[in-house]
Amino acid sequence: MIKHFNQADIQQLERIYRANLINSVSGYKSANLIGTISDNGVTNVAIFSSVVHLGADPALLAFVQRPVGEQGHTYKNILQNGCYTINHVHRHFAIQAHYTSAKFDQATSEFDACYLTPEWLEGFPAPFVRESQVKIGMRLVQEIPIALNNTILMIGQVEHLFVAEHALQPDGRIALDLVDDVCISGLEAYHDVVPFAVLPYAKTTQLPDFKQ
Amino acid sequence: MIKHFNQADIQQLERIYRANLINSVSGYKSANLIGTISDNGVTNVAIFSSVVHLGADPALLAFVQRPVGEQGHTYKNILQNGCYTINHVHRHFAIQAHYTSAKFDQATSEFDACYLTPEWLEGFPAPFVRESQVKIGMRLVQEIPIALNNTILMIGQVEHLFVAEHALQPDGRIALDLVDDVCISGLEAYHDVVPFAVLPYAKTTQLPDFKQ
Repeated sequence: MIKHFNQADIQQLERIYRANLINSVSGYKSANLIGTISDNGVTNVAIFSSVVHLGADPALLAFVQRPVGEQGHTYKNILQNGCYTINHVHRHFAIQAHYTSAKFDQATSEFDACYLTPEWLEGFPAPFVRESQVKIGMRLVQEIPIALNNTILMIGQVEHLFVAEHALQPDGRIALDLVDDVCISGLEAYHDVVPFAVLPYAKTTQLPDFKQ
Repeated sequence: MIKHFNQADIQQLERIYRANLINSVSGYKSANLIGTISDNGVTNVAIFSSVVHLGADPALLAFVQRPVGEQGHTYKNILQNGCYTINHVHRHFAIQAHYTSAKFDQATSEFDACYLTPEWLEGFPAPFVRESQVKIGMRLVQEIPIALNNTILMIGQVEHLFVAEHALQPDGRIALDLVDDVCISGLEAYHDVVPFAVLPYAKTTQLPDFKQ
């Protein structure tokens, strides 16, 4: 059986139910820790499930910043510093990564509170996460405010990329299963991922026989 | 061992290697089929790995439209029609879904070419994918051109949502594993997903004992 919700049904849902439902409908999401530091030297690390590929040349990634209130340390630090890091979340520290989303006060570093380790590499002015085997040094290049719901699309350029060599394939792909990357659905469901196919670039002249 | 690429290294990579690498660095991506129809009645369905949650109230999803050239049927149809559908990709038709990315001519429907079934529901003016158990009727509400690389952030509002009841949880979450959703990494690697934890909303007063 299929359940149908129209627009009015969705608007009338209880708030938490609606948040759980609508956060699920985009499908699986990436799990990344964004690392920053404030002007007064407090490091911050926070989990984001909205990091998305924007383009390879130039190498651009984006993420969605929720409306910024009293908290929003990640956003404020990025505006101060211009730089931030994106670090993949692996299975062995996924629960620590999740708890970075708790509302710690501004003087507390989530690195300390969640037993993660800040790492300084290549003179880059924002902290990486030592536990992560795929980590990216980013420079903010554009903020796009989205008036529809007061979110902000934060676009950054890749300045440094660190990848565990055993996961780097000869064609440039990173085998994310070899570093035990997790993915997220909804607000707080975490998953292991198992590859089943690397398909060729699709050409109309080389279609499989789907009728088999 | 960790491999380091700086910005100059990335710019100098061979084009396909760079595309594979940078498409991998955001982490796992959702797998969705976007269904549309042109003014002259040709249906189109195309796989996208960039659908992202933007907000729950109002219910908004976004996707990244690559620079539009001769092809770009999805984009052109959405501008003509105003509406489109987003349909989750499940394991049993993932390979068919992948091949919708081949460059079929404008008169060919990928539904026919890839043995997928258009479905018309609730009078909505764009075709859903019958094989999918999570399908969303979307209305375009904003196009945001991204000048940095000529992509476009396409923002739509959820007008209809259809979900297989057996996957819908009492709290509103959709258990994506119960409909065999797949996820993507890079350009063409497909994965099964296995849940390992649904964690509570994180509070600073209820942290686990990470030292154990």
